[in-house]
Amino acid sequence: MSGRLTVIGLGPGNADQVTPEASRAVAEASFFYGYKPYLDRLELREDQTRVASDNREELARSNEALAKAAEGHNVAVVSGGDPGVFAMAAAVCEAIEAGPQEWRAIDLAVVPGVTAMLAVAARIGAPLGHDFCAISLSDNLKPWDLIELRLLAAAGAGFVIALYNPISKARPWQLGRAFECLRAILPGTTPVIFGRAAEDHRRGAGQDRSQA
Amino acid sequence: MSGRLTVIGLGPGNADQVTPEASRAVAEASFFYGYKPYLDRLELREDQTRVASDNREELARSNEALAKAAEGHNVAVVSGGDPGVFAMAAAVCEAIEAGPQEWRAIDLAVVPGVTAMLAVAARIGAPLGHDFCAISLSDNLKPWDLIELRLLAAAGAGFVIALYNPISKARPWQLGRAFECLRAILPGTTPVIFGRAAEDHRRGAGQDRSQA
Repeated sequence: MSGRLTVIGLGPGNADQVTPEASRAVAEASFFYGYKPYLDRLELREDQTRVASDNREELARSNEALAKAAEGHNVAVVSGGDPGVFAMAAAVCEAIEAGPQEWRAIDLAVVPGVTAMLAVAARIGAPLGHDFCAISLSDNLKPWDLIELRLLAAAGAGFVIALYNPISKARPWQLGRAFECLRAILPGTTPVIFGRAAEDHRRGAGQDRSQA
Repeated sequence: MSGRLTVIGLGPGNADQVTPEASRAVAEASFFYGYKPYLDRLELREDQTRVASDNREELARSNEALAKAAEGHNVAVVSGGDPGVFAMAAAVCEAIEAGPQEWRAIDLAVVPGVTAMLAVAARIGAPLGHDFCAISLSDNLKPWDLIELRLLAAAGAGFVIALYNPISKARPWQLGRAFECLRAILPGTTPVIFGRAAEDHRRGAGQDRSQA
């Protein structure tokens, strides 16, 4: 019994945008690991167990989930959006690489989802209709210099740029600094779209449209 | 009566990856415009009408669909994957801009979907867990020089690169030329994943993993 671990993308926040594949994976799993706001989206049965953890606990959460799967359970790790885009799929793969040999026998699956930039793009026109890139502004796992290098390269080559993890209490200056970098290359007329909780029931936050 | 037009993303090819939002939009529409292989995925009722068109007919298809919507009908334009990523959402928006004033009164919505790179990434690990970009190798709508510039910029800045529209009968040399460009910058050990019909029932084509 080596168990099963499914990394599930719950989409941008609207239950109507959870794929049937993701819903079925949720129905089949017994233990759920994730950041609490994502777990809160699930309607679980009494025989299903939630194990919530804080943001920025991705590796510890992956280790816990893998250990549970190795005991023979059907375990789910949930992400908002798509689990492969700046989310849990990478953390789980890294944990397997660094973990005990037996974790490699776990039946691992990743269920893709609608990632945030697609949901925001759908609401405001078609900004991703040409070449684009996605850059996380979190400098927890990479140096800030590399982020600036990528912003400048992307702007110089005319990519549309989707910024993930733009701002947080722990990272208050990064978005402003990113805009400063981009201003050196892009004209002041470049449109900027702010998408927040794009498909959440609590919409009203919605998107603001402004100029850089 | 100004009608309604919904641009619908049908996901990567597996019915289990069509969101409930997309399924509802399909159920509500009366006229369906799209490239035939995408229309073939739909199970339509007798009162629903399909209007298939060839690939590379995006603008003509958009114009036809908008004209039908302007008559007061509920019209769907379907895309595989996400309609905003190198697909029909941009063509429809461009057609509205260039079209008669009355088309701006049409109730336009875009329903996002799981785009191909997310589906492929889910099957092979977590290649998009860090910064990445998407580049279409089709030079129908942009000059090839710009594609090379973007490939070099993305490789130089360490982006993972997803290539859309890699090869076709009409564009036989572009993928090879793109690899030549990338070889100038990336080491020969860079992994290359070929994803084909990633979530199609006809899988077996599957993905090949090789080195650049």
